[in-house]
Amino acid sequence: MEHRDKSSKLPHSTNKSAIDRFRKLQQKEISISDIFEGIITQNTAALSKGITLVESTQQKHSAKTQELIEKCLPHANKSIRIGITGVPGVGKSTFIEALGNVLIEKGKKVAVLAVDPSSTISGGSILGDKTRMESLVRSKEAFIRPSPSGNSLGGVAQKTRESIILCEAAGYDVIIIETVGVGQSETAVHSMVDFFLLLKLAGAGDELQGIKRGIIEMADAIVINKADGDNVKRAREAKNQFKKALHLYPIGENAWTPQVLTCSALTKNGIEEVWELVLNYLEISASNGYFEKNRTEQNKFWLLQTIEEQLKSSFYNHPEIKKALSDQLDAIQKHQITPFTAAKYLLDKHKNS
Amino acid sequence: MEHRDKSSKLPHSTNKSAIDRFRKLQQKEISISDIFEGIITQNTAALSKGITLVESTQQKHSAKTQELIEKCLPHANKSIRIGITGVPGVGKSTFIEALGNVLIEKGKKVAVLAVDPSSTISGGSILGDKTRMESLVRSKEAFIRPSPSGNSLGGVAQKTRESIILCEAAGYDVIIIETVGVGQSETAVHSMVDFFLLLKLAGAGDELQGIKRGIIEMADAIVINKADGDNVKRAREAKNQFKKALHLYPIGENAWTPQVLTCSALTKNGIEEVWELVLNYLEISASNGYFEKNRTEQNKFWLLQTIEEQLKSSFYNHPEIKKALSDQLDAIQKHQITPFTAAKYLLDKHKNS
Repeated sequence: MEHRDKSSKLPHSTNKSAIDRFRKLQQKEISISDIFEGIITQNTAALSKGITLVESTQQKHSAKTQELIEKCLPHANKSIRIGITGVPGVGKSTFIEALGNVLIEKGKKVAVLAVDPSSTISGGSILGDKTRMESLVRSKEAFIRPSPSGNSLGGVAQKTRESIILCEAAGYDVIIIETVGVGQSETAVHSMVDFFLLLKLAGAGDELQGIKRGIIEMADAIVINKADGDNVKRAREAKNQFKKALHLYPIGENAWTPQVLTCSALTKNGIEEVWELVLNYLEISASNGYFEKNRTEQNKFWLLQTIEEQLKSSFYNHPEIKKALSDQLDAIQKHQITPFTAAKYLLDKHKNS
Repeated sequence: MEHRDKSSKLPHSTNKSAIDRFRKLQQKEISISDIFEGIITQNTAALSKGITLVESTQQKHSAKTQELIEKCLPHANKSIRIGITGVPGVGKSTFIEALGNVLIEKGKKVAVLAVDPSSTISGGSILGDKTRMESLVRSKEAFIRPSPSGNSLGGVAQKTRESIILCEAAGYDVIIIETVGVGQSETAVHSMVDFFLLLKLAGAGDELQGIKRGIIEMADAIVINKADGDNVKRAREAKNQFKKALHLYPIGENAWTPQVLTCSALTKNGIEEVWELVLNYLEISASNGYFEKNRTEQNKFWLLQTIEEQLKSSFYNHPEIKKALSDQLDAIQKHQITPFTAAKYLLDKHKNS
């Protein structure tokens, strides 16, 4: 009897709660390990479960998510990440399906993710309706996941970025990130991909819109879709116009000259060429070191981005600040105070609270 | 002896320090009051002194500056603020001088300020050389002040915004804010003026640059300068091109359609028309309430802007964070950690320090 271990001498209740804690710990270990093992053995159900965890907004899942991502990290970073944008109606789904099928024929595994912060409100304008990529959905080599929901672009983008890591650990060779051609989503997606592709239509008359919004500046390739039937000639003309527009921009440090292609996602014409262009890009940017450098820069960018969003959010969501900010805004409206004095007052209040 | 006041019972040293404090307080009161009285009685030397105080980076001046600005505030807000931008060589100084002289002939008092964060390095690319506005400098009705120096646009812009208040309290009817056509300075100036004017040259071939950089979107008027001699025809052509470009943009809530004019700052041709355009704008935006609304929105914008800059600066300049951030960036470079985990670590560290 003298050899019983110390824990059994504890009062019953404490002992029980210790056991419960141990069980919970065990369950957690098993659960995350299970998901992780599933992911690296390319089990799609496990990958889905992992992404669901990543997308969870519940505080209690946060530590688990981090654990899972850190386990996956050494297995990640091995894909090519392609961002695809274009206004609604340009044929993004059909294009992604056509490109995805070409890749699968070449023995690649393809994951399609999305960034669309509006999807909560609109009910998912992109990838929500998987039937639009019917043949890709049926393929075992493809994994398609709609945009995570959320009101802030920062939150949605973070979840997609983390999902990329899981998909890479699950052995997907090409990760396609789709986004809608509105707002800041394109900048966010550009900051998480290796190759950024702008999908266009001929004669849409929005050539200047892309310049205005800085999208053309980000594009590694402009692909003019629906170059079929009567449209072929117009697509060729548009190609020349965009080539001219691209000359406005200096060549970046990658030494890559953005290219303009035409294709028809419907007839599959020109899709193969898009992939060849991506491979060409990869070759150049891998050999001159830009590929690695860019990924590291992107990670650093996301670090700072996340910090700054968090600083703002914890300031503005502070209950005392909320009230005080509203008072200061009133005082500004009445010309009683300068914005700089009001800012100082609020910052001091925040520091002392 | 029983009637002596309490303070004289204090030990000599305390009493002396109390007197010193009182004297300093008095000096401070007198000094700020002097400057303030000088400003509202339109004394240029006092205004210069006040702006020097505003521009001071010394911590001890900060409270004084706030006091002065708050005193001036009820006397401010009565001018029209005009932002003027354009690339180097477009003739900003000559244009501002020509416009300033037209205004002075009409009995207006004109202050010219500037925002140029690069001026510390470049030695003041704008307004630094006052000889470029010779006749304006000599006029009693004009006040010209070069850009405050500083490395951060936020800091430079804040100082200029505060100087506007002092100039308005000193009775200047028109405040012209000049900025260079590079970087984010134009956005900052746009956020502190009522009317934003983009100065252009004919045939400079940079029409698309303005669209690309979002400057045309901000402009209430585009004025094509140097429309003289052989250049008149080209200027007229450029005018038509810019008119077309402006059609790309939807009319804002102000119901104002941005206008394109030609002028010659050299021959003074068309300068009067620029001022008429500004008056026309004022009439419309005052009658529909946009003028007031815009100023309030600008103040609110600067409140949030200042808060966010301060939050970032106090985070990144924290000694512990500086070291830790550098370590986390290393870990990111080595793919040992995700940017999100690193951000969480740093934010937790900051919270607990």
